[in-house]
Amino acid sequence: MAKDLVSNKRRVHFEPDNVDIVVEQGTNLLEAAINAGVRIYASCGGAGTCGTCKVKIEKGEVETTRTRKVSDEEFQQGIRQACQSRVLTDLTAYVLVESRLEKAVLSREDRKISEALATGWRLKSPLSKFFVELPPPTIEDNVSDLSRLLRGLKQRYNLSNMSVDFDVVKKLSKTLRDSDWKVTVSTLVTAARPRTGDTHRPRLINVEPGDTRNKYYSLAIDIGTTTVCGQLLDLNRGKVIAESIEYNGQISYGADVITRIAYCQRPGGLKKLQQVVVATINEVIDTLLAKSQVNVRHIGHVIVAGNPTMTQILLGLDPKYLRLAPYTPAANFIPPVEASSLGIKVKKRVYLFAFPSVASYVGGDIVSGIVAAGVHQRKALTLFIDMGTNGEIVVGNSDWMATASCSAGPAFEGGGIKHGMVAISGAIEKFSIDPLNLEPEIGTVGGEKPKGICGSGLINIIAGLLEVGVIGQNGKFNADLPSRRIREGNEGYEYVLVWTSETQINKDIVITETDIDNLMRAKAAMYAGCQTLARSVGVKNSDFEQVIIAGAFGSHLDIEKAITIGLFPDLPRDRFIFIGNGSLLGARLTSFSVDLLDDARRVAQMMTNLELSENVDFMNNYIAALFLPHTNAAEFPSVQKKLDRLAKDKVKRGAMV
Amino acid sequence: MAKDLVSNKRRVHFEPDNVDIVVEQGTNLLEAAINAGVRIYASCGGAGTCGTCKVKIEKGEVETTRTRKVSDEEFQQGIRQACQSRVLTDLTAYVLVESRLEKAVLSREDRKISEALATGWRLKSPLSKFFVELPPPTIEDNVSDLSRLLRGLKQRYNLSNMSVDFDVVKKLSKTLRDSDWKVTVSTLVTAARPRTGDTHRPRLINVEPGDTRNKYYSLAIDIGTTTVCGQLLDLNRGKVIAESIEYNGQISYGADVITRIAYCQRPGGLKKLQQVVVATINEVIDTLLAKSQVNVRHIGHVIVAGNPTMTQILLGLDPKYLRLAPYTPAANFIPPVEASSLGIKVKKRVYLFAFPSVASYVGGDIVSGIVAAGVHQRKALTLFIDMGTNGEIVVGNSDWMATASCSAGPAFEGGGIKHGMVAISGAIEKFSIDPLNLEPEIGTVGGEKPKGICGSGLINIIAGLLEVGVIGQNGKFNADLPSRRIREGNEGYEYVLVWTSETQINKDIVITETDIDNLMRAKAAMYAGCQTLARSVGVKNSDFEQVIIAGAFGSHLDIEKAITIGLFPDLPRDRFIFIGNGSLLGARLTSFSVDLLDDARRVAQMMTNLELSENVDFMNNYIAALFLPHTNAAEFPSVQKKLDRLAKDKVKRGAMV
Repeated sequence: MAKDLVSNKRRVHFEPDNVDIVVEQGTNLLEAAINAGVRIYASCGGAGTCGTCKVKIEKGEVETTRTRKVSDEEFQQGIRQACQSRVLTDLTAYVLVESRLEKAVLSREDRKISEALATGWRLKSPLSKFFVELPPPTIEDNVSDLSRLLRGLKQRYNLSNMSVDFDVVKKLSKTLRDSDWKVTVSTLVTAARPRTGDTHRPRLINVEPGDTRNKYYSLAIDIGTTTVCGQLLDLNRGKVIAESIEYNGQISYGADVITRIAYCQRPGGLKKLQQVVVATINEVIDTLLAKSQVNVRHIGHVIVAGNPTMTQILLGLDPKYLRLAPYTPAANFIPPVEASSLGIKVKKRVYLFAFPSVASYVGGDIVSGIVAAGVHQRKALTLFIDMGTNGEIVVGNSDWMATASCSAGPAFEGGGIKHGMVAISGAIEKFSIDPLNLEPEIGTVGGEKPKGICGSGLINIIAGLLEVGVIGQNGKFNADLPSRRIREGNEGYEYVLVWTSETQINKDIVITETDIDNLMRAKAAMYAGCQTLARSVGVKNSDFEQVIIAGAFGSHLDIEKAITIGLFPDLPRDRFIFIGNGSLLGARLTSFSVDLLDDARRVAQMMTNLELSENVDFMNNYIAALFLPHTNAAEFPSVQKKLDRLAKDKVKRGAMV
Repeated sequence: MAKDLVSNKRRVHFEPDNVDIVVEQGTNLLEAAINAGVRIYASCGGAGTCGTCKVKIEKGEVETTRTRKVSDEEFQQGIRQACQSRVLTDLTAYVLVESRLEKAVLSREDRKISEALATGWRLKSPLSKFFVELPPPTIEDNVSDLSRLLRGLKQRYNLSNMSVDFDVVKKLSKTLRDSDWKVTVSTLVTAARPRTGDTHRPRLINVEPGDTRNKYYSLAIDIGTTTVCGQLLDLNRGKVIAESIEYNGQISYGADVITRIAYCQRPGGLKKLQQVVVATINEVIDTLLAKSQVNVRHIGHVIVAGNPTMTQILLGLDPKYLRLAPYTPAANFIPPVEASSLGIKVKKRVYLFAFPSVASYVGGDIVSGIVAAGVHQRKALTLFIDMGTNGEIVVGNSDWMATASCSAGPAFEGGGIKHGMVAISGAIEKFSIDPLNLEPEIGTVGGEKPKGICGSGLINIIAGLLEVGVIGQNGKFNADLPSRRIREGNEGYEYVLVWTSETQINKDIVITETDIDNLMRAKAAMYAGCQTLARSVGVKNSDFEQVIIAGAFGSHLDIEKAITIGLFPDLPRDRFIFIGNGSLLGARLTSFSVDLLDDARRVAQMMTNLELSENVDFMNNYIAALFLPHTNAAEFPSVQKKLDRLAKDKVKRGAMV
């Protein structure tokens, strides 16, 4: 690596990715990593407060603003926060294993996801294909090419009153003649039952030579704050033929929607984040096409569901006002947009349909989940909880729905937790603890050596520690217990889950009192949200006939443990249903059935949003919920009974010892 | 001017424009002139057959393929056809005065154009503006920005069920806040009486800060084969506030639609011609804006009318199949197109509406003219004739209409005539002749020294020569008459209209037997077209209650002379009405009234096209019409009577001498 002495260009080499980038001297090291394509996690978006973007400087020099997120020991080893470092010389930087994003999410193939609960819909995609053979023009019958096509469609399929995209007109004459007057047209409808004078009339969006009816695909995409999940759908057979998931590239610009919105306020920030998520979507599409061997030109439409921030950024709509009181989205109903105009690598004339949203933090992902779960189809009073980076709650049934969003924070996805991480290989998700010797037993995603703790693991750990009394109902450690795993660390008391030698990260993996505190706040926000919303509509917990848990996270959750820590209400366990990624599921179903698109609009319109951010009840409920499971034991009778019994057992055991 | 000895770059200097261009050695001189922006006329599109693109090489050398269009004398003077010459060295080329296109068409301000004949329409533009003051969002009322806007429009104006352009959504949040929640929206409808489930529902196309209702303009544009005429309209007052006309830049690529279509078949040809006409439109717009002091951002829509070839080229639709049997247009009804996407210099979100057309050679210009003339509103049986570069004919009334197009050729616009030219300054348009000494009296456009003969001049001249017997009813010269003006030239007999010394072009301006032959063919095509169409629908000439003549050409025409040569049927003169540029008139009216847009669609749909190009009757009628006025004297009784009387007078005078 030759050093250029006369210029201020510096070459940065990243390990273990083995990629180089040349940057100006003084460039921020996190930006350099992002631009080099290094998959690095930066949950606070580069503010220096999360400590997740650590790298080890193996060669060369950086100028660093040191924060308390880097210990003395780490600092001496050359470990720095990339976001706080600027490049001085040519560098070699090693991205620590816990700072890396890995393409391993889908290794969790064992997901047990319920099928959709929505019923009664026809397999009738918004995208339809019609094949026609037209009589070639003669001097007696020389109507325009478009008139001929429309006449043929009317005669053969009784299709009429269509609007025609100009781009179709543009290539029509050539296509008709090249294909010897045998063509397949694609039409798009966005409603099954158009009202009079409605916008949802059939739209002629494409014309292809020959009979292509058997090649007829669409994409369903869930744009999550953390991950982008896509499915390639065969519309003829109503089947998923490939699935792919990638980290949302925006992760390097912040873990939650608030940091992303903040980033959009920088010059060029919105455009950058749009490009980044489009790049992720394109990666997902590449994988889907490679897996399925489908040609991209046979993809006829794209349905996306995401929260309002993700949706607005994708569409290039500044999300600024989503986070400023009084929290208004740009639009709840977005007109179909040509996907290629956003940079998505599909053909022209492929429209992207974004699920309608409800309010600033209640988005198309929730509407999609509700439709997939069929909440709108049943009289049963339902509590619907989507556990993403944000938590959204819906209460209602086929007659009415109320919704609220609570900023639980990123704890459920491992954010703000000392050894927190997303649920990829090496993340601790299973946990049990011997009540006698307080030794743990852990299980990781993919069975690898542990690297950190994911959200569901965190819940299992805290519930377990609570049950055996390692922590009290206030979330504080019982430091008197006789276990070398309970100790005082830099940030107060902690429990050692894994000793250094058994980890991938060369240090003890611990859970700290601060971590427990963070998770308690997150679960308190979720629970208080449910409580506040339910009470605002005059409903008690016991009224809920079903509780539907959505979110990729949801499907790995131990319901008993989640109730134990006070995350979900204390109801009979058989009322709980997991539907996994409800957002993706709804996107898929609506791609199969235009009936459900009607439902989605109806659902978005029927939902009443309760704004929690300035709600006094919510604040009171939140404070009351900052306890395990709750300050009001009567809210969690079965949990309290269990904890009392376990405590009694312990006393008994103590007496026996 | 330094000559670059090592490269093959050559500098060409054009006079009298005084512009230079550097081209590769071997470049076609016509192309060089076009690229240099020199306004040169090339009616055959560079095929070498018309002889209109002559230049005089004053310095340097060209390599020329000589055709019979350049006389020996001209050749010795250094005169060459630009299209047949290739650049060898640095050059100075003088564009002959008769080859120049001048920006002088509008100097003919004395045009007497009838006002529109259409009646009963409301002043209700397809483009509407609505001002709303919205309540700013609060925490209790934080619906999305778009919902707020739509709610406000519903409350204030009872507007509902609109479709919303995505671009409006894109800028909405910022516009609302920047304007303190006071905005003006623009909506577009393309029908006054939308049918159920129709495409013509209101479309929200723009949102502007503040109250801009008083700034509310549109453009009406007639795209002719020869000229592009535009008007800037004030939609609040229903007035034309500026008018502009330019040569269609495509003239340099051929005088008629056939040569233009042929040019489109070259690589890049379609794109080139599209750019050229868009450049002309932009010139027209520049002039309109400069004259009116209107800001371009207040132009809300554009309505264009043109023949199918002009329309398809403007929209980038290959016109190839218009001229190939069985002659099919790409589409008769074109969806609205964003004008800026075609390169037209208006703001984004300004839609261009192209008049619907009927058949390959019966276009939006005719539909527009019919609507303007109100033919569809009256029971009176009407013959409508549009005299453009092509001739189009409509027969019908409010119940039915039949149409045909006949390729009259460019003679009516001066094409294919030895000294023919379009009707600009210096063109001979008035003509009378002394029956005794056969000396002419001429009048030119603008009163300048003559340069050539325009179409209406040609008709007047031929009628005059016929009346005094200089030519016979077969179009041949009576060479025995005692006048030095009748002489034998290179191309047979000719009559000298102006002697060299009185011209601008330094040569005698003559009319030749070939010219007369060309005009006879043109008028025969028009008349045979009328006859064939009328007979095909069972109508006699005398059934016509009115004859409407449209076309810029039409308004300068002497109706008596036109009947004398057999161009129009021999009907009482008071049945003839000139409406001038009917295409532009219709575009203007529909811009004022969406009622007339409905009419336009209805007219386009009710017209039955009769294809003349392979019609045996037409061929017979055409042959029979190759006489002055016609081989069947009974078709033109008043003319025959007049000619007989004049001949008798002459014999009498001869007896007296």
